[in-house]
This record gives sequence, C-alpha cells and structure tokens, in this order.
Amino acid sequence: MYQAQIDINCDMGESHGHFVVGNDTTIFPYITSSNIACGFHAGDPWHMRQSIRAALHHGVRIGAHPGFPDLNGFGRQYMDIPSEQLTAQVAYQIAAIDGVARSLGGKLAYVKPHGALYNAVASKEKEAAAVIQAIQEMDVGLALMGLAGSLIEEMAQVKQVPFIPEAFADRRYESNGQLRSRRKKEAVIHDPEVAARQVVRMVLQEEVESFSGEILSLKARSICIHGDNPAAVSILKAIDDAFIRHQIKKSA
Amino acid sequence: MYQAQIDINCDMGESHGHFVVGNDTTIFPYITSSNIACGFHAGDPWHMRQSIRAALHHGVRIGAHPGFPDLNGFGRQYMDIPSEQLTAQVAYQIAAIDGVARSLGGKLAYVKPHGALYNAVASKEKEAAAVIQAIQEMDVGLALMGLAGSLIEEMAQVKQVPFIPEAFADRRYESNGQLRSRRKKEAVIHDPEVAARQVVRMVLQEEVESFSGEILSLKARSICIHGDNPAAVSILKAIDDAFIRHQIKKSA
Amino acid sequence: MYQAQIDINCDMGESHGHFVVGNDTTIFPYITSSNIACGFHAGDPWHMRQSIRAALHHGVRIGAHPGFPDLNGFGRQYMDIPSEQLTAQVAYQIAAIDGVARSLGGKLAYVKPHGALYNAVASKEKEAAAVIQAIQEMDVGLALMGLAGSLIEEMAQVKQVPFIPEAFADRRYESNGQLRSRRKKEAVIHDPEVAARQVVRMVLQEEVESFSGEILSLKARSICIHGDNPAAVSILKAIDDAFIRHQIKKSA
Amino acid sequence: MYQAQIDINCDMGESHGHFVVGNDTTIFPYITSSNIACGFHAGDPWHMRQSIRAALHHGVRIGAHPGFPDLNGFGRQYMDIPSEQLTAQVAYQIAAIDGVARSLGGKLAYVKPHGALYNAVASKEKEAAAVIQAIQEMDVGLALMGLAGSLIEEMAQVKQVPFIPEAFADRRYESNGQLRSRRKKEAVIHDPEVAARQVVRMVLQEEVESFSGEILSLKARSICIHGDNPAAVSILKAIDDAFIRHQIKKSA
Repeated sequence: MYQAQIDINCDMGESHGHFVVGNDTTIFPYITSSNIACGFHAGDPWHMRQSIRAALHHGVRIGAHPGFPDLNGFGRQYMDIPSEQLTAQVAYQIAAIDGVARSLGGKLAYVKPHGALYNAVASKEKEAAAVIQAIQEMDVGLALMGLAGSLIEEMAQVKQVPFIPEAFADRRYESNGQLRSRRKKEAVIHDPEVAARQVVRMVLQEEVESFSGEILSLKARSICIHGDNPAAVSILKAIDDAFIRHQIKKSA
Repeated sequence: MYQAQIDINCDMGESHGHFVVGNDTTIFPYITSSNIACGFHAGDPWHMRQSIRAALHHGVRIGAHPGFPDLNGFGRQYMDIPSEQLTAQVAYQIAAIDGVARSLGGKLAYVKPHGALYNAVASKEKEAAAVIQAIQEMDVGLALMGLAGSLIEEMAQVKQVPFIPEAFADRRYESNGQLRSRRKKEAVIHDPEVAARQVVRMVLQEEVESFSGEILSLKARSICIHGDNPAAVSILKAIDDAFIRHQIKKSA
Repeated sequence: MYQAQIDINCDMGESHGHFVVGNDTTIFPYITSSNIACGFHAGDPWHMRQSIRAALHHGVRIGAHPGFPDLNGFGRQYMDIPSEQLTAQVAYQIAAIDGVARSLGGKLAYVKPHGALYNAVASKEKEAAAVIQAIQEMDVGLALMGLAGSLIEEMAQVKQVPFIPEAFADRRYESNGQLRSRRKKEAVIHDPEVAARQVVRMVLQEEVESFSGEILSLKARSICIHGDNPAAVSILKAIDDAFIRHQIKKSA
Repeated sequence: MYQAQIDINCDMGESHGHFVVGNDTTIFPYITSSNIACGFHAGDPWHMRQSIRAALHHGVRIGAHPGFPDLNGFGRQYMDIPSEQLTAQVAYQIAAIDGVARSLGGKLAYVKPHGALYNAVASKEKEAAAVIQAIQEMDVGLALMGLAGSLIEEMAQVKQVPFIPEAFADRRYESNGQLRSRRKKEAVIHDPEVAARQVVRMVLQEEVESFSGEILSLKARSICIHGDNPAAVSILKAIDDAFIRHQIKKSA
C-alpha cells in the first residue's frame, strides 16, 4: 500500500582502467536507475560491461550517461563543441552502450547527460537541441533524464521525447530553482536525515525549500544521489528508512 | 554474363577531427565494402557518420573496423591487452557503429580488425579468440573479415562465425602465405597493372605468386585495397578495366 | 639598407602520428618564427622533434604553441579549465618543448597560445592570467606572442613579460580591431597580392583597413601566416616580393 | 653510526584529473626517492606539480617516471613502439618534468621507466636502447633507475649512464633473478615483517631468497615499495623499525 513512488538514480561505471571511482558494488542495491558512463568523460568498455551486468543482476534500470570527451576534466569542464559534432558524439555513446546492453540481455531505457553537458542542456539551446537530436536519431524509444523545470524539459516536450524530470537528494537549490553551485558553501548536503527529509518533501509535497528559505514547487520523477558524496550510502539508507515510514515505493 | 564475382574492400572513415586521412570521396565509387574506423585507432563519431552516409549513398557494404586504442600509433603498434578487456573494447566499437548505422538507415554487415590487431588475430590465439567472442556476444549476424588461410579463419569456422577471407591487391606475399612485411622492400605494389593482374589471378585461378616465385593457392572472397597507397585510385581503375575484360563482377 | 623589419610566424609541427597536417617542409624557408605544437591539441613528441630540427636547420626562431588538451577539436573549441589547472597544463607544454629544444641544441624563445586558448587570452582575464603565470613560473626568459592590442598585451606589460604583438597577413579585421570570425564570409584572405599589401601597410604605416573600411592603427612586431591556408606559400612568396620592393627585412 | 644506507623509492603522482590513485600524502614522509608520473600512463600536469611540491617539502629526491602512452592500461600493457618514436616520447616526458621541477625550485635526479616499459627495458634491447638514448640526449646529468642485474644495467654501463639498481621490498623473485609475475600466486608480499626482513637481507647481505628457495646475490642501491599495495604504509613502517634496529640509514 504505497501513497507514492519515485525512481532513485546514481552515476555508475565511472572507473577507467586502473583508475577506480565510486562505490558501485555498495550502491547498486539501493538504486532503481543507473546512469552508466560511456567512456568519453569516464568509464571504459570493460567497466561499462561490468556496470551493465551489475544493473541486470540487481534489476536496476540502465541509462546512458554521455559526457564531453574530456577524461582529465571528468566531463565537468564546459567544451564549446559545434552542434553537429556534439550530436554525433552523443549518438555514438548511446549506440555503444545500447548495443553492449542488448548483447548482455539488457535494454537501454534512457539518456542522462553528464556534468558540464548536463548543465549546458539545462540552459543552453545549442547543447539541448544537439542531445535531443541524437536521441531522436537513435530512435530506440529512449527517454531523456534531466533537471526538473529546465530548458531541455521544455524542448523535449516540444519534440515529443519522453522526459524524466529529476531532483537532487544531496544538493541545495537557489531561489530560481537552479542548483546551488558547488563552488559556494553548503551546496552539498552531507547529513543523511536532512537529505532524506528533502527527498520525502519532494515526493509527497512536490516542493523543496531553497537555500534562502523560499518554498519552490518542483515535479520530479527521479531523485539523484551523487555516488562520490562520501555520505552516499548513509543517505541512501536514510531515504530507505524514510520511504518505509512514509510508504513511498522506489521504482524506475 | 559473369564468370566470377568478388568483393572489393577498403579502409574508410579514418580522419579524426581536423586531421584528414585518406581519400574517401574518390574511393567510395570503386568499392563494394567499406571498413569504417570506430574512433579508437582512427576516425571519430562525426567522421564515422559521414562514412556511413557515403556508404549508403554509394550502395557500399558497411563493416566495422575496430582497432587498438592508440590514435598516435594509428593502431599499427601491437598492444598486449588482456583478453577480456580486448573483447570489451571490440564489442564497444562494434556496438557504436552498429547503432549509428541503424540510426542512419543502414546495417552493419561484418567486422574487420585493423592494423596490428588484424595481424595479431591472423596468428595469435588470444587476440583471435577475443575478437570472435566480441562478435558472438554482439549477436547481430555479423561476418568476420580477415586474412585468407590464417588462424582466425580456422577459429571462426570452429565457432561458426561466417568468415570472409580476403587477399590483397597491392601487397606481396611471402612463400608461407603471409604478407611481406612493410619494413621490407617491394612489400607494396604501386604499379596498377601489376596489382590488377594479381587480383584477376586471385579471383580466377585462386592463386598468387609469392615474392620468391612460388605459386600459392588462396581462396579469397574479398580483395583489399589500401586507401593510403598513393596509387589507390589508379589501381582501382586498373582493376575495373581488367574485370570488364575478364567478366568479373564486383559484388559484396 | 632596410627601412623596416618584421618577424613572420607560422604554426608548425601540427601532425600527430600518422595524421599529417600542414606543409612544414615547404613553409620553413619563408618564415622567421615557428609556433611548434606541444602535443595537447596537435603535434606529438616525434613531430615536435622534427619541427625543432627543421627550425634549427633553417635558422628559424622556436616558439611553444600550447593549446587546450583536445586533439579531436584541434584546440579550436573553448574549454572552461580552472585557472590553476590551465597554468599547470601550459607550464607542462612549455617545459616539454623547452627541454627537447635544448637537448637538440636549440633554445625556446617565446610562447604563443593556440586556437581557442589564443582567443581566450585575448579577451578573458582568467585565461590570460593563467598563461602569464605559467610563463613567469618557467622563468626561462620567454616572451609571449599574442594579438596586438588585446587584453593579454596589457596584462603582460603589467607583469613585465616581454610581449610580441602580432597581426595577420591572411585575415580581415573588424572595426573594433578584432579578427573577423571565420564563420563569417571573407574572413580569410586568399589573394596573395591583397595579403602582401595588407602586410606592407601594417609594417610601414602601422595600420590596417577594416572589413567595413575604417583605418585602424596597429603596432605589430610579427606577422602570422596560417599554414593551413591553401594559399600559404603563394602568400609568403608575394610577401617576399613586396618586402624586396619596399626594403623590409624579415627578422625574428 | 650506520652500518649501511639505502634509498627507498615509490611511484607517486599517478592520479589523473578526478581519478585518484595512491596514497601520496601518507607515503611521502617514509621515502627518499619519488618516481613521479609524467602524464602518459598516469598523472597529469597538475598532479605532477603537486607531487614535485610534496617531494620538495619532504626533501625527497625527484625522479621522472615515464611510461607508455596508455592511460587506460596504466602503462602496464606492452606497446610495440618504434625505437625513434619511443626515444622521442621518453625525452618529452623527461623534459616536461625536468622543466616543471626547475620552475618550482627542484631538480630532476633520475629516470625510472614504468610498468610494461620497465619490464621491456629489463630484457629487450630495442626499448633499453631507446630509453638510454633519450636520457643521453636530455643531457642533464640524469641517472637511470632499473632492475638490478638486468639488461639495461649492462647497457647503461657501456653507455656510461649512471645506473641505480633497485630491488623490491614487496615482490618475490624467481630463481633466475626476475620478479615473479603478478599473474602467479604469492607474487606480492603483504606481510610487513616478511617484507622488512627481505629488505634488510638485501641491504646487509646483498642477497634475496627466491620463491623456490635459492639464495640469489643482488646488489641494489634503492628499494622499491609499491604504493598501490594496500599494505604499503605498514611495510614502510616495518622497514623503518627494522632499519633502526639494524642501523641502516635511508638516503637517496
């Protein structure tokens, strides 16, 4: 008997060769959607396969997590790539993970851009259009996951690309609905109880309290946890406890 | 009324960003199969798309041309990559081009390893098995193209992977059936008439004269031309002329 | 008996492995300064050495040509790299070419940023400061070459870094003194006589006529030719002829 | 009053961008020489600088740690690079770290090849000669560090390049004096006491017991600890304790 349901997503498969990032084994049991790196900003063919296999093992939804071709910057540095090139790069990443997922008995369900590309599509028309174009060309019934209330949500609706609006468990919001920049203090929430309360309010009240105290309305269908937050697992456990109390179902 | 038919293949789509390699526009009209680079040793997402579009325009068969992840060495330097990693890397490259080809209305037909990987699979079990494994996992009905009479031809037969044995228009053979190393003199044929004669003999007599004069028997279903041979177009034209005279059909 | 003298510079050593760019052998005899790529946006250790040797052979001044770490984009895509990282990346590139030049009996004389980094330092304080910082840290008496009249010229003067202002033989200027964008028509001059006349006027009158007809004053100590302009050699020859007529000496 | 002295070296600066490897902060206080990655197989310009600064802070000797250009394989995969290219790549890496070290007030003291390149120079003439050539060309008084008793030790002596023979604290030896392959069991020593005893015996008796029980003689001037051995710090502490007891001085 649930009164609501919500998806929980996390970036996965970000290790590259000998360079290990994240805590995939520990986090997979707690999430319902995995944004799997495609080798451009993080990840590599071998780690991508391991992540797909882990997602299948845990019944977790598989998403492509394309990023800028910038391993050293982890895709967090904006790159001004011409539109047609960017579409080609995103389509290539989607095609790679889609094919590998199918070869392992899985199915790619959605695309969530990473890092600086995520931020770009939330507010810049060039990048948003390029990513939507890539998804439409691939034509494998993919949804697009992105910031609730952002430019790309509007553009996806116009282009009839299914959109999964997401909100953040462990980040603070500014009063304009944007995420508080990581360069500012208190941008990231480390207290599991605070994060869990924010999530429950997002799910049940469809609102979030901004950093300066306004109540913002916000419709999310997925909640993002950052795997590189040292408190990630504690936050995921606190969310589980809160969801049990509030009868919220986790579901992709 | 043809007395024989043969496929003509060439490496395509090897440009990377601003770095242009090859002569794709000129060569596409003459070939029936295109081995398209997948971005690891050459090519990139944008050039891959242009090559797929050109192949579709000219009715040329599309092949994946995976290579070692070594742009600076153009995939011509052997890399000792563990088997499971190599399978993952080849599968990733196949998946990427397969998905992009389908998104553009095309279909991937075969896989031909590139450069040092091509040579490795011709004689080394580890690499041959890793590539066959990748093709089988992808399970999209792909054939494998490789050196006629090589180790991977045998291994592909055992594993029931369709194999397209190929021979070279513009390379000399040693008496053991291997290609004469590019580091030795007269390894490459530059005279179009000599190349065309070698091809006709390969097709009609199923034999080739080795560098030291032996007649070797050789069953090829495709003939490779090297696009970076400065004489490539002249050789392709000489082959066309010879094929008209000898009633040999070019066909994938 | 010269009435004036000027340096002529060109980007060199941009080939990467098997990927050949430019026309170095043909251009070296005509120039007095070479901006040699350092392997991040173009070039590689082997081509860098060949370029340094060629510069020494022709008595051409050696400059570092650092760029963004983006081979696929040829350093022409802006990347938003944090200041401290960018300083480290530029210092690394300078150190590499400085050490290799010394090992071959040469000496690094100046630094000229490439492509999107060149444009960034011309107008953005973050990037200009990061590059100046790198040059000062290296402390090997290096000059900085950049756009005459730009932000980095001012900042270099404040920091007492010797600055070589340059102007372009084969590009048109807007009335604000900036280069006309390559995305606009007639941005590039292909007619050798027009380019040579523009250069002579820059040297003797210290002025240039803008695209819309204004006369702009401009003090340059070096003139840049783009090696990837197909007319590069013709322009260099036309400049030589004009310099002979006008008694202008080419000198680094 | 010391009865012997020995250098302790460890690979440092292997993080790349957001990808963190190793435990540099913890290990620096225990070592006397640091093999700092140069950005090809690991490391990057920013991490290289941090490592050099840390080495200077702790009074630790600075070494270049060049590797194959293979970030995904962490330089542990053999690459068959032509001799002249390899020399250029190693010289470039040495030049980069040498220049950056000088710019920060330090001085590069030696070169130790990494991973698959380390193994190659220990037994293959092509790679050994290429690395020695690079060191000689750079001509900045550098020593070469490598496996005690290996091919490159002999070749360095012939070429009069100062050689620092090293032995391994945490690795087992085969009876032919080579390191036991990591692919075999018990190749790595995890027990700090066992490692410390092996080191003391290496220093005082100039011998090591092989995996199969032979006593091998071995003259080392430096002892290598692997920073990625989870027991690295415990081993370093156990060595310190043993050195105090046996009056062995740590010194570069």
